[in-house]
Amino acid sequence: MLTFFYAPETCALASHIALEEAGAAYEARRIDFDKTEQRSADYLKINPKGRVPALATDRGTLTETPAILAFVAQSYPKAGLAPLDDPFAFAQVQAFNSYLCSTVHVAHAHRVRGYRWADDPAAWEAMKKKVPQSVGECYDLIEGEMLKGPFVLGDRYSIADPYLFTLSGWTRGDGIDIDKYPKVREHRRLMKERPAVQRALAAERR
Amino acid sequence: MLTFFYAPETCALASHIALEEAGAAYEARRIDFDKTEQRSADYLKINPKGRVPALATDRGTLTETPAILAFVAQSYPKAGLAPLDDPFAFAQVQAFNSYLCSTVHVAHAHRVRGYRWADDPAAWEAMKKKVPQSVGECYDLIEGEMLKGPFVLGDRYSIADPYLFTLSGWTRGDGIDIDKYPKVREHRRLMKERPAVQRALAAERR
Repeated sequence: MLTFFYAPETCALASHIALEEAGAAYEARRIDFDKTEQRSADYLKINPKGRVPALATDRGTLTETPAILAFVAQSYPKAGLAPLDDPFAFAQVQAFNSYLCSTVHVAHAHRVRGYRWADDPAAWEAMKKKVPQSVGECYDLIEGEMLKGPFVLGDRYSIADPYLFTLSGWTRGDGIDIDKYPKVREHRRLMKERPAVQRALAAERR
Repeated sequence: MLTFFYAPETCALASHIALEEAGAAYEARRIDFDKTEQRSADYLKINPKGRVPALATDRGTLTETPAILAFVAQSYPKAGLAPLDDPFAFAQVQAFNSYLCSTVHVAHAHRVRGYRWADDPAAWEAMKKKVPQSVGECYDLIEGEMLKGPFVLGDRYSIADPYLFTLSGWTRGDGIDIDKYPKVREHRRLMKERPAVQRALAAERR
């Protein structure tokens, strides 16, 4: 049995969608960020990083979105969520997700979590100011080079798609004009039509 | 045929070591950061991100360290560089590498690449000042929770090891006292004894 720990409006949505796409049996447990439950002693026992997502399994807890996404794809091969028998194509998915994790999400995080990297409130303001540019450069690359369209890999849906959908949902707050990125905009539209996406979003709104 | 693009003293060392551990046939091509070759038109055609590492294959170019490492492990299964037949154990490796990529490397990068996230030199100074703390917190977690020892997964060597070795080589510059982290220190010692590590280091010094 899987237990999935998430909070609304976080990158956990990507794994939440993937679990729905896979038809996995899991229990979803919301972590209350308003009460900083992610730093509670009980939760730190599950995930010492004090973050979401986390996926508790019979063998231990997995963290980090790219790892959870690949685990879901490999554990539910019939769902066809990654090109599992082709190391090059699988690496392309992994490279896309790694870029989202280490560059796009990180650029975005400088808008609201500058305290992770500096103690000076003036520095937080300087970071916030650059977010439209740094996140915008990421979407220039995604639109121009990385997103084949309609899905990340082209016609084939994969675990890169819920992750892109999750982060591209933050663009408005980051000061990005999505109309500059027609492939990303169309990707968002297609994703919203998927029943698995609708189920994950509904569960997180509850 | 594989062509591996790297620069010395970058995270490309992790993939360089993995290629050596795998016994892969590849040509190593140094990108001259002093001449900002990573931003040259020729290199941007290979890797539009303007970064290293990049691994050119017959089917296209792969980027992002966690993706390249997993590709090497899957392409050379006899080298035993990852638990390929066990999705949970493979996800543990992926989670470790994802943390190195998106949290440890990112914390470190605020020491010398603050311009990525702010335009104000005073903000760069504020970022630099916090690096010993933010990188130190990463190693608290690695030493206390993540590195089983002697290797990342325990007795079994994997693609997480060259990546940890690469980033832990930056700790002194980041103001971290490695003696506070005996498991990390021992990991560095063991890694330096490996012929593949010695070959990659020697190639990058040339």
